[in-house]
Amino acid sequence: MSHCSLTKLSGTAKMKVHGAVFSTASQRVFACLYEKQLDFELVPVDMSTGAHKMEPFISLNPFGQLPAFEDGDLTLFESRAITSYVAHAYAHKGNQLMYSDAKKMAIVSMWIQVEGNQFDPVASSLCWELVFKTMFGMTADAAVVDEKMAKLGLVLDIYEARLAQSKYLGGHDFTLADLHHLPCIQLLMGTQVKKLFDSRPHVSAWCTDILARPAWLKVVAMQASN
Amino acid sequence: MSHCSLTKLSGTAKMKVHGAVFSTASQRVFACLYEKQLDFELVPVDMSTGAHKMEPFISLNPFGQLPAFEDGDLTLFESRAITSYVAHAYAHKGNQLMYSDAKKMAIVSMWIQVEGNQFDPVASSLCWELVFKTMFGMTADAAVVDEKMAKLGLVLDIYEARLAQSKYLGGHDFTLADLHHLPCIQLLMGTQVKKLFDSRPHVSAWCTDILARPAWLKVVAMQASN
Repeated sequence: MSHCSLTKLSGTAKMKVHGAVFSTASQRVFACLYEKQLDFELVPVDMSTGAHKMEPFISLNPFGQLPAFEDGDLTLFESRAITSYVAHAYAHKGNQLMYSDAKKMAIVSMWIQVEGNQFDPVASSLCWELVFKTMFGMTADAAVVDEKMAKLGLVLDIYEARLAQSKYLGGHDFTLADLHHLPCIQLLMGTQVKKLFDSRPHVSAWCTDILARPAWLKVVAMQASN
Repeated sequence: MSHCSLTKLSGTAKMKVHGAVFSTASQRVFACLYEKQLDFELVPVDMSTGAHKMEPFISLNPFGQLPAFEDGDLTLFESRAITSYVAHAYAHKGNQLMYSDAKKMAIVSMWIQVEGNQFDPVASSLCWELVFKTMFGMTADAAVVDEKMAKLGLVLDIYEARLAQSKYLGGHDFTLADLHHLPCIQLLMGTQVKKLFDSRPHVSAWCTDILARPAWLKVVAMQASN
């Protein structure tokens, strides 16, 4: 009996996300865990005191960036590696976020790379200029904003063409390729960048759809209650 | 008979890489295909005439970046998505470049992300300054080189600690996490950046090991014969 209880306890130990509710990379992981209906514990890391650059956090991620993740004896960092692990290892829980077919999954992987290499560098820069700088009492650099908005427009032109042919970026179904975009899109919808999304009908419909997912609304609620 | 021959022809149709032998992203794909002992056709794209920004190439990759890849009816771009597809879809051919165990694969995925997000932006910038600018008769910006070398040193300090504990980045075996580094390391070994690799013993041994892989030597030979 005692052995069974211990086994059960070990089997149901919560996953841990060492992160922060306002960190976009942490939000990517929260959204994935809610989609998979997995219970997790948020271990807050206070970036305002530089806790992400000190022990004990840098033993979890030597690069000193949020989030880090623990599932039993497995420790991971890099948000997109964490979501990929969760989607694979818990394939049969909650919502499917990838495909088992190699060719279908290859298309999802391609759009995951597009998010990371084409969308995120520009979108994160705009989040910094238009959201986080304001939060820290700094002023946006108008020249940087103009340059990055022009670049984001070109990326979204390609998204518009893709989404005219496919309901979601990775195929007919919502996958990690869409999910990874949520944190930056949510922030940019509260800025002048909103017009870049709204002016492209298929991009606009896609944003409305993915921003309304119940799992994402739970991530938004985490911020409101913080 | 005729039907059988057609089937056989279709089954043995070569994969195509639309790329260039001097493109580091194309080299990542060549290295992967050689590791998997897969036959492929290189369809050269002449970047000097801007062919990567025009049709027919931009129908393969609307972002206008090398390489693009075709395997039967599947078309992909983004080099790391292509290598991931090849390693999964041809798991039983040539050398294994990933793990089937979810936790072991998660560690590989994490280091694949580290290469893409931490190593490549700095290493690619140094390749541009110290290799490609010279090739195009331009002069390296010394301030940029100093700044990027300092950043690369910090990344390689973390690699040194990892490689002191693990023969390869993703685990005990050579995987895509190592392979993705090869094109930039090969180029930087011919520049002043070499000292950053050489001065860290585990990083240095890792570089020597992976640069000597037969599949990589075939990629180097492609450039020499071009």
